[in-house]
Amino acid sequence: MGKRDLSEYSICKDAQAMIAKAREDGVETVWDRLREQEPHCGFCELGLSCRNCIMGPCRIDPFGNGPQRGVCGADADVVVARNFGRMVAAGAAAHSDHGRDLIETLLAVGEGTTADYGIRDEAKLRRIAEEVGLAVAGKDAKAVALELAEQFFNDFGCRRGSISFIDRVPAKRRALWEKVGITPRGIDRDVVEMLHRTHMGVDNDAVNICLHAARLSLADGWGGSMIATEVSDILFGTPTPRTSKVNLGVLKADQVNILVHGHSPIVSEMILAAVHAPALLAKAKAAGAQGINLAGLCCTGNELLMRQGIPMAGNHLMTELALVTGAVEVVVVDYQCIMPSLVTVAGCYHSRIVTTSPKAKFTGATHIEFDVHNARQKAVEVVELAIERFKVRDAGRVEIPVEPVEVMTGFSNEAVLAALGGTAAPLIEAIKAGKIRGAVGIVGCNNPKVKQDYQNSNLIRECIKRDLLVLVTGCVTVSAGKQGLLMPAAADLAGPGLSEVCKALGIPPVLHVGSCVDNSRILQLCGMLATALGVDISDLPVAAAAPEWYSEKAATIGLYAVASGIFTVLGLAPPILGSKVVTDLAVSGLEGVVGASFAVEGDPVKAAELIDARIRVKRTALGLTP
Amino acid sequence: MGKRDLSEYSICKDAQAMIAKAREDGVETVWDRLREQEPHCGFCELGLSCRNCIMGPCRIDPFGNGPQRGVCGADADVVVARNFGRMVAAGAAAHSDHGRDLIETLLAVGEGTTADYGIRDEAKLRRIAEEVGLAVAGKDAKAVALELAEQFFNDFGCRRGSISFIDRVPAKRRALWEKVGITPRGIDRDVVEMLHRTHMGVDNDAVNICLHAARLSLADGWGGSMIATEVSDILFGTPTPRTSKVNLGVLKADQVNILVHGHSPIVSEMILAAVHAPALLAKAKAAGAQGINLAGLCCTGNELLMRQGIPMAGNHLMTELALVTGAVEVVVVDYQCIMPSLVTVAGCYHSRIVTTSPKAKFTGATHIEFDVHNARQKAVEVVELAIERFKVRDAGRVEIPVEPVEVMTGFSNEAVLAALGGTAAPLIEAIKAGKIRGAVGIVGCNNPKVKQDYQNSNLIRECIKRDLLVLVTGCVTVSAGKQGLLMPAAADLAGPGLSEVCKALGIPPVLHVGSCVDNSRILQLCGMLATALGVDISDLPVAAAAPEWYSEKAATIGLYAVASGIFTVLGLAPPILGSKVVTDLAVSGLEGVVGASFAVEGDPVKAAELIDARIRVKRTALGLTP
Repeated sequence: MGKRDLSEYSICKDAQAMIAKAREDGVETVWDRLREQEPHCGFCELGLSCRNCIMGPCRIDPFGNGPQRGVCGADADVVVARNFGRMVAAGAAAHSDHGRDLIETLLAVGEGTTADYGIRDEAKLRRIAEEVGLAVAGKDAKAVALELAEQFFNDFGCRRGSISFIDRVPAKRRALWEKVGITPRGIDRDVVEMLHRTHMGVDNDAVNICLHAARLSLADGWGGSMIATEVSDILFGTPTPRTSKVNLGVLKADQVNILVHGHSPIVSEMILAAVHAPALLAKAKAAGAQGINLAGLCCTGNELLMRQGIPMAGNHLMTELALVTGAVEVVVVDYQCIMPSLVTVAGCYHSRIVTTSPKAKFTGATHIEFDVHNARQKAVEVVELAIERFKVRDAGRVEIPVEPVEVMTGFSNEAVLAALGGTAAPLIEAIKAGKIRGAVGIVGCNNPKVKQDYQNSNLIRECIKRDLLVLVTGCVTVSAGKQGLLMPAAADLAGPGLSEVCKALGIPPVLHVGSCVDNSRILQLCGMLATALGVDISDLPVAAAAPEWYSEKAATIGLYAVASGIFTVLGLAPPILGSKVVTDLAVSGLEGVVGASFAVEGDPVKAAELIDARIRVKRTALGLTP
Repeated sequence: MGKRDLSEYSICKDAQAMIAKAREDGVETVWDRLREQEPHCGFCELGLSCRNCIMGPCRIDPFGNGPQRGVCGADADVVVARNFGRMVAAGAAAHSDHGRDLIETLLAVGEGTTADYGIRDEAKLRRIAEEVGLAVAGKDAKAVALELAEQFFNDFGCRRGSISFIDRVPAKRRALWEKVGITPRGIDRDVVEMLHRTHMGVDNDAVNICLHAARLSLADGWGGSMIATEVSDILFGTPTPRTSKVNLGVLKADQVNILVHGHSPIVSEMILAAVHAPALLAKAKAAGAQGINLAGLCCTGNELLMRQGIPMAGNHLMTELALVTGAVEVVVVDYQCIMPSLVTVAGCYHSRIVTTSPKAKFTGATHIEFDVHNARQKAVEVVELAIERFKVRDAGRVEIPVEPVEVMTGFSNEAVLAALGGTAAPLIEAIKAGKIRGAVGIVGCNNPKVKQDYQNSNLIRECIKRDLLVLVTGCVTVSAGKQGLLMPAAADLAGPGLSEVCKALGIPPVLHVGSCVDNSRILQLCGMLATALGVDISDLPVAAAAPEWYSEKAATIGLYAVASGIFTVLGLAPPILGSKVVTDLAVSGLEGVVGASFAVEGDPVKAAELIDARIRVKRTALGLTP
C-alpha cells in the first residue's frame, strides 16, 4: 500500500480504518493491485490497441512515428470506435441480460411454475401491461404477467422493430432518432449487431460505429434497463419513501452478518425472506448469535434498500473492506461488479463467498445455484451456511469501525409523483419559478484511480448548493448517504430555493431513485417532463454525471443519457482519446446530432460549473430566469 | 516489403507478381503493415491484457514476476477466458447477423414487399419448413416463406429454449450437451450472455466461461450459420455441381471488371443480375469494353461460385492484390473480412470501393445502400459506376499475371446425396470398406503471418494422399482451386481407395461445399452420418482443420466443430496461451467434456499425421480397418 496517507484512498472513515486493518492483516486490496498495474498500457488506455483478429494484435502509435494502421488497415479512429462500441455493447448486454432474468421470473409466475415468487404490485403490473398495449380487463394477474413477459421477451428480438417503452420517449426525440437512424430495434439484436460491425472488415467508419453504439445504448436505457426496473417493481414492490442506515457500521458484532452483493433482487429478496424465518433465527441463537443481520453492497443492496429499507454496508470499493471487518459470515452474490478478489479476501478470514447464478461462478467460491423453483430453499441453505461460519468467527479479528448514518430512500417515480400530489405539475412549477433550477442525475461507481466518494459526494454538494435537485443511483447512493446527504436535514446545504421546496415536502435535496438499471427511472421522468412541457429532453434544464465510474455498464448509461439529450459529465475519460474523430464526436459533435454531448472533468467544482452553465442555457432558452 | 523473396509471402504466382507490382507502384499491402506491427504485444498475443473496465487496463505477467492479477482480482485464467469468450461471441455474432439478414429477405418475400427477391428453390423451402415442424400442405410458397422466417427469427430469441435445427444433432450428442449444460438456447441470447458474463465481476471461472463459449458457438453452427445456408439456398438456389475458374487470371483486360467481396449473396446476386442486363452491356460496349466481367472474392465469391459458377479472383490475401492488377473498376462489398485498406489501395488506381450495407460503411468509399426494395436498381447504379470507371482505366498500369485454373464446385449436401443415388449409404459403405478412410473439413482464411496458401493446400494434399476425403469452404476453396485440387483429375494425387471412388463418380477428392457459413453443411453431413450409424459425431472418422485462420469467426467455427465432437487442428494458436487452464482445456480437457479437442500445428505434414492418427483411433473403435 506504500507510504500514501489513508486519506488519499478514500474520504470515508470506515474505508480508511479497514485499509489500515487490511495492511495489518496482510490482505491485498484493489488499491494494491492498481499500484502494481501502474503505469497502465498507454495503447489500451487510449483505445489504440486492437485484438479483433489474429493478423494482429495491433497498436496504433499515438505520436505518429510508429504504425498508423493495423494489419488490416484500420486507423486510429476505426480501432478506437470498435473498442468503444464493444465496451458499450457489453454494458448494455449486462443490464439487459439482468432484465431478461426478471422477465423469466415474471414468466414463471405467469405460468404458475414457481411457488417462490409472486406479484407484489398488481396495480403496477396492470398499469404497465396497459401502457405497452395489452388488454388486461377481466384477466387475472397471472394471465397478465404471462402476456407481459411475452411482450417484453419480444423487445429483445428482431420482429417488433422497436421496443415497448418507445412511447415514453417524447415525440421530438423519437423523430430525431428516426432521422439519425438510431431508433433501437431489438435489445439483443442491436447488441449483437455491434459485435458483428466490429469484426474485422465490417464497419470501418468511426462515426457510423459510434452512432450504432448510441442506438444500442438506447435499447438498454429505454429497453433492457427499463424492463428490469419495471418488472422488479411488479415482482417485489414499487419503492416508497422509507429510512435506513448506511456504512460498515450496519454490521453487527453480535449477530450473523450476511451481505448481498450484485445487481438483481431475485436472489437477495429470497435471502431477505430467509433471514426472518423463525427456525433459522433459533439456529442462529443456538450458535451464540443475537440474530441474523442482512445488509447490502452495490446494486443488489440498492434494490433491497429502495424496496425494503435494508441497510447498505457499502459501495464498490467497500466490498473487499467489508470482509476485512472480520464480521461477515457470507457474501451472497448474483452478478456484476463483484471483484473476483473477494474470494481471496474471504479466505483471509472465516468468510465465504456464495455464488448463485450459473452464469457467474467464481473459482474457489461456494456455489449454491438458485432458480425460480428452488430459490426459497436455497436461501435457507445460504443462511444455514452463514450460521455455521459464525461459529468459527474469530472475535479477536473483528473490527466494525464506525456508527451507521441514516438515509432516506425509496424515491421511485411513483413515490415522487405521490409526494407531489399525483402529478409532476408542482415540480414543473418549482422549476419554472427557479426554486429548483434543474435536476442532475449523479450516478455510477467508485474507481480506485480517484479518491473514493470524493467526486461523488462533492459534486452533489456543489449541485444542491446551486438549487439543482440531485437524483442518485448505484454506488453514488452510498457516497451520498455516508455524508448525510440523503436526509431531509441536508436541505440546509442546498440553495435557498431547493431548500425551501425540500423543507415544504419533507424530502432530502438528493433523492435515491435506485440501482444502476434504475437510471431508467430518470429517463422516464425526463420523458414525462419534456412531454408535459411540449419540448425535447435536450431542452430541459437537466444534466447527468458519472464522477467515479469504472464499468462498461456506466459507459453505456452515459451514452444513453447523451443520446436521450442529456448533457453528461464523466469524472474519468473513456478509452477513446486515441481518436480525434471519436473524441471530438463525444465532447462536441454529438451536440449537433443528438442535442447533447459529454464532458470530462474530475474536479467536482468545475464539473458543477459545467452543469450549471448548461442549465443556464437551457433555462434561458425556455424563457426562464437562468 | 524488405528483402524477403516473393516466394516467402505466398505460394501463388499471381500473388507474387502482384506483390512485386505493388512494390513498383508504391502501394502498401497487408504484409507491409504486418511488418510494421511486429513484434506484436506479447500480453495481447497471450490473451493476458484486459480492457473490460477502466479500473484498468491491466496486464498479467506471464513470467510470474509482475502482476498476477488485474485491479479487480482477475487472474490469468479469467482474463484469457474472458477475452476468448468475447472473441467467440463476435464470430458467432457476425455469422448469425448475416443469417438474420437472409431471414429478413425471406420475410420480405413472404410478405410480398419485395419485387427484387423471390424463392428459387421452392422444394427446399417446403422441405425445410416441414423439417422444423411447420405445416405446409395447401399453402403457397409465400405463406410458407413467411412462417419459416418467423420460425427462424425465434431461434435468435429467448422463448424457444433451443434452436430449430437441434434435431439434426444426433441423439447422443444432444444428450451430452444437455448433461454438460451447453445446449444452445437462443442465438442472440447466448451471444449477449457472453458479453454479460465477461463484464467485470460476473463469470470468474475460466472453465465456466469456456463452456458458455462452446454453447454460443453451437448456437452459431447449428443455428445462425445453418439458417444462413439454408435460407440462401431457398432464395438463390441449392448448389449443384458445375465448373468455373479461379485466380487473378479470371480478370479480363478488355472488359469492365467488377468484383464482389464480403459474405452474403443478397447484394452479389443482384450485381450478377445487373451485369447481364442488355442495356448495361450496351453501355459497356459504348465505353469501349468487350463486356462486363463479374468475379468473386472471399465468401460472397463462394456463394456465387457454388450456385452460379461465377469465377473467383482470390481469397483473403488476394483482395488488395486484385486491385493492384489495375484492371478492377469496382469492388462492391457487403460485410466481413473486407480490409479497410482496400479504400487506400483503390485510391492508388482508378478503382472504387462500393459499400452497400448500413452496418458496414468505409470512410472514403462510395456508399450505395441496398435494401430489399431497391436492390436491383442499386445494382444497376453499381454497374454504371464501374462502366464510368472503365473509361478512366490506365491500360498502361494493367497487369493480369496468370491464366485461370479450372475448378469444380457446387457440392451441397443435396448434390452429394444426389451423386450417391439419393442416400448416404454408398459413402458409408466406402468408409466402412476403408476406400475412404474418413473425411476432413479444411476451412478458414489466409493470414499474412504464414505463407499464403501453403498450409491450406499442402494439408489438403496430405489428407487426400491418406484416402481422406476433403471438404473445403471459405478461403481454402481458392487455395485448393488454384492448385488444381478441385478438379476430378486431382484424384491422381489421392490414395488408391479415394482415387477409385472419385474416378467412379467423376468427382474431385476435394469437394467445395461453400462459404464460411456453409460449414454448417459439414455439420449437417456429420449429423446424418452419425445418426445413420447410430453413433455420436465424436465416434466418426472425421476431423477439421483451419490452417491459416485469422478471424474471430474462424475461432467460433473451430469451437463449434470441437463442441460437436470433431477434432480440430489450427495452424495458428488462438490468444489463449497465457492461461494454463484454458490452454489445457482446449488441447486435452475438452476431450473428456465434449469428446474432441483442438491441436495447434502449423506444419501440414504433421497436421495430417495428427488427423490420420485420430481417424485411425476412430475407425478402430468402430471395428473398421484403421
